[in-house]
Amino acid sequence: MAAAAPPPPPTPAPEAPTGLPDSESTPVGYPLFSRIRLATPNDVPHIHKMIHQMAVFERLAHHCVATESSLSATLFNHLPFQSFSVFLLEVSPNPLPNIASPNFIPIERIMQLDLPVIDPEAEIFKSGSNDVVVAGFVLFFPNYSTFLAKPGLYVEDLFVRECYRRKGMGKILLSAVAAQAVKMGYGRVEWVVLDWNVNAIKFYEEMGAKILTEWRICRLTGEALEAYRDAI
Amino acid sequence: MAAAAPPPPPTPAPEAPTGLPDSESTPVGYPLFSRIRLATPNDVPHIHKMIHQMAVFERLAHHCVATESSLSATLFNHLPFQSFSVFLLEVSPNPLPNIASPNFIPIERIMQLDLPVIDPEAEIFKSGSNDVVVAGFVLFFPNYSTFLAKPGLYVEDLFVRECYRRKGMGKILLSAVAAQAVKMGYGRVEWVVLDWNVNAIKFYEEMGAKILTEWRICRLTGEALEAYRDAI
Repeated sequence: MAAAAPPPPPTPAPEAPTGLPDSESTPVGYPLFSRIRLATPNDVPHIHKMIHQMAVFERLAHHCVATESSLSATLFNHLPFQSFSVFLLEVSPNPLPNIASPNFIPIERIMQLDLPVIDPEAEIFKSGSNDVVVAGFVLFFPNYSTFLAKPGLYVEDLFVRECYRRKGMGKILLSAVAAQAVKMGYGRVEWVVLDWNVNAIKFYEEMGAKILTEWRICRLTGEALEAYRDAI
Repeated sequence: MAAAAPPPPPTPAPEAPTGLPDSESTPVGYPLFSRIRLATPNDVPHIHKMIHQMAVFERLAHHCVATESSLSATLFNHLPFQSFSVFLLEVSPNPLPNIASPNFIPIERIMQLDLPVIDPEAEIFKSGSNDVVVAGFVLFFPNYSTFLAKPGLYVEDLFVRECYRRKGMGKILLSAVAAQAVKMGYGRVEWVVLDWNVNAIKFYEEMGAKILTEWRICRLTGEALEAYRDAI
């Protein structure tokens, strides 16, 4: 899809945005080429930085002890989709170079933006060649419903870097997980939301999700969990 | 443990319970030999029946479409603890026969009950030889915390058959999962509870769990999920 699209105008000026040619369609704006692909061990540094940005955003940085090496040791140990899996969102103002992706056909889209994105961290999140940067990720893994006797996919984290928010990218990432679940014949996609985050709840409901209002998560962790070491 | 214990008295009478000999310790009652072991594909018929009993208990039988064949097709496809795993609770009034269990050392306990258990479904839940019956199960699988950069274990279902309830068996099953998580170096054990089930909440808090009051589960399923088949 990206390869078939015409290249964007060089250095477009805000006062005179140049869109796709009229022969293609009529959108006017700044194209942003986006791609969702499966993350690999090489992406751990970017994933690590985004996990910490997410922790800061949620004011939970003091709970975030993930390091590049601890992520490397625990992710990517299984076949994609069989265990913990990460979709990475890459974007570029230019058509994305082709990549090899044996286990998942990358999902590519061209977004038309009203204004170009100013990415102050473009250098840090550079992904491969050209102007490609990592803009977000979603981490998910299989869960299981005994009533359905089917696996599902559980979305542990969904994150879009600040300068790429409010452009529908979160929806694209979540939709990619949902499409993958359908493709695998799975019965559910689940995730959690804070009860006071009414905007997120509205967004998820518009995507077709039901909020299970009666269920509460129970968590055994830290010393309370360690206490079970010799309990049995 | 079971092998080292003396055999229980033959046909103990309620009015004159015969416990362990005084030389061992001083409990008086009816011994119930219990064992937690990893379930195998051969256990699917029992697991299936218990899932349906759980659905009836939760008044959700109309949502339960699990069959023996759909459970067989989706469980036991991976190494134990790497994906969906089931611990089975077996009990017997007599010492349990030894079993081969390469991936998990069975956890054995002798409970001293005030009264013998009358199990109206003993024949249906018979497990192997002698008087061994399946009394409950717990189904769990790995989840992942990005903040900890560690897997955890998520408990999807915990069930004890009605005649074996209020004897601490749920706690033994949940403790077995917690102990397994610690053994594997995992960071959390999580599960969910209904917000109105104050007894369960109290029980879980006493076990050391924190209830995450602010989080709500979002679920995309059925036609709403199917709609994403071609969304990407």
